Amino acid sequence: MLPSLRRILIGEPLATHRLSLERLSILGGLAVFAADALSSTAYGTEEIIRALVVAGSAAAAWVVPIGAAVVALLIVVVISYRQTVVEYPSGGGAYVVARDNLGVGPSLVAGAALQTSYILTVSVSVAAGVAAITSAWPALHEHRVAIGAGWILFMGLVNLRGVRESAAVFGVPVYAFITLMLALVAVGVGRFAFGALQPIEAQPVEAAAPLTMFLILRAFSSGGATLTGVEAVANGVPAFTHPSGPNAARVLGILAILLGTMFFGTTLLLHATEIMPSEQETMLSQLAALLFGRGWFYYALQVATAVILVIAANTSFAGYPRLTAFMAGDGFMPRQFANLGDRLVYSNGIVFLAVAASLLLAFFGGLVHALIPLYAIGVFTAFTLSQAGMVVHWLGKRNAGWRRSAVINAIGAVITGMVLLIVAVTKFTEGAWIVVVLIPLMIGVFRAIRRHYDYVAERLSLSQAGEVRPRRNLNLLLVGGMHRGTLEGLEYLKALTDEGRAIHLEIGGEPEPRIKRMWTDWEKDIPLIVLSSPYRSMIEPLIDYIESAKQDENYDTVTVIIPEFVVDTWWEALLHNHSALWLQVILRNIPGVALLNMRYKL
Amino acid sequence: MLPSLRRILIGEPLATHRLSLERLSILGGLAVFAADALSSTAYGTEEIIRALVVAGSAAAAWVVPIGAAVVALLIVVVISYRQTVVEYPSGGGAYVVARDNLGVGPSLVAGAALQTSYILTVSVSVAAGVAAITSAWPALHEHRVAIGAGWILFMGLVNLRGVRESAAVFGVPVYAFITLMLALVAVGVGRFAFGALQPIEAQPVEAAAPLTMFLILRAFSSGGATLTGVEAVANGVPAFTHPSGPNAARVLGILAILLGTMFFGTTLLLHATEIMPSEQETMLSQLAALLFGRGWFYYALQVATAVILVIAANTSFAGYPRLTAFMAGDGFMPRQFANLGDRLVYSNGIVFLAVAASLLLAFFGGLVHALIPLYAIGVFTAFTLSQAGMVVHWLGKRNAGWRRSAVINAIGAVITGMVLLIVAVTKFTEGAWIVVVLIPLMIGVFRAIRRHYDYVAERLSLSQAGEVRPRRNLNLLLVGGMHRGTLEGLEYLKALTDEGRAIHLEIGGEPEPRIKRMWTDWEKDIPLIVLSSPYRSMIEPLIDYIESAKQDENYDTVTVIIPEFVVDTWWEALLHNHSALWLQVILRNIPGVALLNMRYKL
Repeated sequence: MLPSLRRILIGEPLATHRLSLERLSILGGLAVFAADALSSTAYGTEEIIRALVVAGSAAAAWVVPIGAAVVALLIVVVISYRQTVVEYPSGGGAYVVARDNLGVGPSLVAGAALQTSYILTVSVSVAAGVAAITSAWPALHEHRVAIGAGWILFMGLVNLRGVRESAAVFGVPVYAFITLMLALVAVGVGRFAFGALQPIEAQPVEAAAPLTMFLILRAFSSGGATLTGVEAVANGVPAFTHPSGPNAARVLGILAILLGTMFFGTTLLLHATEIMPSEQETMLSQLAALLFGRGWFYYALQVATAVILVIAANTSFAGYPRLTAFMAGDGFMPRQFANLGDRLVYSNGIVFLAVAASLLLAFFGGLVHALIPLYAIGVFTAFTLSQAGMVVHWLGKRNAGWRRSAVINAIGAVITGMVLLIVAVTKFTEGAWIVVVLIPLMIGVFRAIRRHYDYVAERLSLSQAGEVRPRRNLNLLLVGGMHRGTLEGLEYLKALTDEGRAIHLEIGGEPEPRIKRMWTDWEKDIPLIVLSSPYRSMIEPLIDYIESAKQDENYDTVTVIIPEFVVDTWWEALLHNHSALWLQVILRNIPGVALLNMRYKL
Repeated sequence: MLPSLRRILIGEPLATHRLSLERLSILGGLAVFAADALSSTAYGTEEIIRALVVAGSAAAAWVVPIGAAVVALLIVVVISYRQTVVEYPSGGGAYVVARDNLGVGPSLVAGAALQTSYILTVSVSVAAGVAAITSAWPALHEHRVAIGAGWILFMGLVNLRGVRESAAVFGVPVYAFITLMLALVAVGVGRFAFGALQPIEAQPVEAAAPLTMFLILRAFSSGGATLTGVEAVANGVPAFTHPSGPNAARVLGILAILLGTMFFGTTLLLHATEIMPSEQETMLSQLAALLFGRGWFYYALQVATAVILVIAANTSFAGYPRLTAFMAGDGFMPRQFANLGDRLVYSNGIVFLAVAASLLLAFFGGLVHALIPLYAIGVFTAFTLSQAGMVVHWLGKRNAGWRRSAVINAIGAVITGMVLLIVAVTKFTEGAWIVVVLIPLMIGVFRAIRRHYDYVAERLSLSQAGEVRPRRNLNLLLVGGMHRGTLEGLEYLKALTDEGRAIHLEIGGEPEPRIKRMWTDWEKDIPLIVLSSPYRSMIEPLIDYIESAKQDENYDTVTVIIPEFVVDTWWEALLHNHSALWLQVILRNIPGVALLNMRYKL
């Protein structure tokens, strides 16, 4: 039953050689990897303005230079990463680049930072999407954790079906959102150019604090979250069709153009219309209502925004399993994360991500806004390490044009490093301090895992192994009574070996049980040994016998043959003692005992 | 860890030969088996009066003849059962007596009726005791299910420790209750005899219905529940010290005298004082306050009453496991119910009873008063069948005095049969109809279980079995890679057999895996077979190979040797794939495959 449920949910398994066919086109790649970055245009500008208006309405004018700085940062990061993806066609996320160029320590920092940020992205973006839904239907508010977890489960399942299915399912809303946002920006900028866009008369906001440099940097940090989607593309290079490096670079380029246009467009329009943050309505909603009225376009954009906020999590489902597969391949994560599942995706990573994000959501009761600073830090740590690694890479490679490439990556590293510092300082009390605790802990776990694998490998190594030596083994057949199953066991024992013994455990306390008298009628060669069990336990007398066989008769191993008969239904199974199962569970921990489970049909 | 927790909770196992020492004296037997019957004196008279006052205060005078009828019924049943326990020293409950004399059908009716009534007794009496506690501390009302389940768990544990421990733990409150009740009756009757007991001036109750014969019979039915404890003694005869039959008969005699005195004494006193039922206070509490004032005696009796109500359930813990052990011995219940546990009690019956009663309590939210009619019907069904069976028994035996014995049991059968009819008719709409549905269903289950065991026995029978025939077996050693564990596997394989094959599953898609090249350096005799797995599943290629070995090479069985290495801690276990476990789970359902699990330490 379970296998067929699995087929229905996930689909038929795909053959390993189809791996090269399960690739993403540029359009599909954009749908999978761009969702996270693009979704941030729905709230990025608003976050900046909200941070600024603490210093009064007039301070909101700073949104234009800050927005320009964010776009500039985006351009620097994308140019820098385009170089990385071409150099690392098998996947050039921060973990791999840092490992190859900076060493194990920095690579683990990048890995830990990215893992937290991927998991947080899922929780945070799903919570944001669910909040959009529960604003429309407040009755659903109390079910927000269940709705969020249900959505995460659904995304997990779609991703388990394979990367192409995920692109097909989530591509439509992504492109709908892009189209609507570009239309909004085009119409708005057009009307502004022809002088047909007037500022609204908003209530001026009183200044609660002076406009300091710290405030401006903090506003910039809030806008920096817009860049979070870029790293996922670099991790996912092998998911693209051939040539995967250049295709990934193209996706990064298109992403930068779209993101820059949408983000800076809305920033300009919000500045021109002087729209102010409100408790009841997002600023994007106010802008759309002003430009188009509350008609079909307005509602289409609202729906598309809610959907893209949730789908943003899909980028993590593409990035996280690849990252953990790399780390598992290096022995820093459990080996299972490197297994390709039925549909040629890293199923264990997908399942782990879904479970971890759902637990986080449940733990915080669906209110995860406070976690946002954490993931910005994770992403900028990864950016900085990745680009610093690329600088080292070019210094080592020294091919044609290496100087230019090194300079580009160095600029990227310095700028993202500075942003990391800004985010860390301005958001420290808002939760960024947690990262300082969490990342060393995670690195400790990674190293412990690696130590275990190293230990296992060393113990299993053949370097000090001797010859294959002969061994002495004793076969014991357990018999419960004199019946047909016992004869099957005897036939089997005799096929296995010429010698062997049958063992009967007498728990009723009879000195001369019936089986003892019947045995010789059926079997001459194999002796029957009756062990009496004064405490009705089957285990102790058997273990004593095994130990004495090993000690006194010099056997190296004892094989215990446990015949078990098979019934057809679960309720029939309830009617039997399952001694075979219990014996296996307990005997498996006795050293030098091998268990042979022989099942027979009635 | 689990075994030591078990030792702490339940105690050290007892040897089978100690069974004859784990017996109850007369005092202990009374403590275990009398609790249920004696506890009913706390509410029996009140139930009768409550049923009568529907026809007004004057109708309450009928309580004296009805009380006398209940005591007469008790005397008849006890005399009748004293004969049964002497004749059936290995346990003479209604199930056994009906089986031996009336046949399988009636015995299953008795078994089903008794099982329902034992389970219901636990739920109902624990609920009554918990209600007494939550009346005193209303804040606990919302935790009533948890308190009840906790108490059931505690009683289950005490009974798992053995029957003597249960008598020791629960004996004190039982004897305290007996002493206090006898004191109450003695003082009350003494004062009445000397004219020092005056009726209180209670508000007269208006008649809501005429005093009909139906009403009187219904009141009598309510009082009949007092007899429920008698059957448990008959079931438990082997639990008494030698001579167990006469000792059980003595316990029944003492029980009848105590029960008669306490029950009829309170009936007379409640009649003489003209105490009326109240919503706030039980009639027994009113009587004690009138006779002794609200001093230490009054409170001691209240506490003892609350405790005995809960302990009444202990009688079921003594009776139910013995009944199910009898039925399991006959193949009508799962065989596990006949297993003697560590402490020489039928542990599975105790556990099942505790779980079933707790679930019933939880299902009805701790309010199980409505279930009371159900268990009266179960008990009187058992009484009637048991005594009818005894009549048949005497007719067959025809020993000295058989006529007298047969007449006594016949009178018992007729009277309890009439009471059964009265209870069934007067309580039909109050829930007795459920029994009509439930008992046939249970009998269907009993018969289905028996059919399964008969089928298994027939299939396992040696009557048509031939000689032990020779068989061909192929040994396959699964190897994952070339490491020390593989050498251990080879050593083991060679100890087991001279021939055999090693199997490697290649899931990476490599045509010439590394192990293939290394194999011949280490092993010359055993060939290595590489199976490639295009869908990365370990199962399908292995099953195909096994099937072809059986079909094309004529092997009867294939033994798959699965080496598995053992790690020290649970977290290390998380870091490995557990292929060995998965292979075992799936291969165990393939016919003709034996699984050999060989574990090695690093």
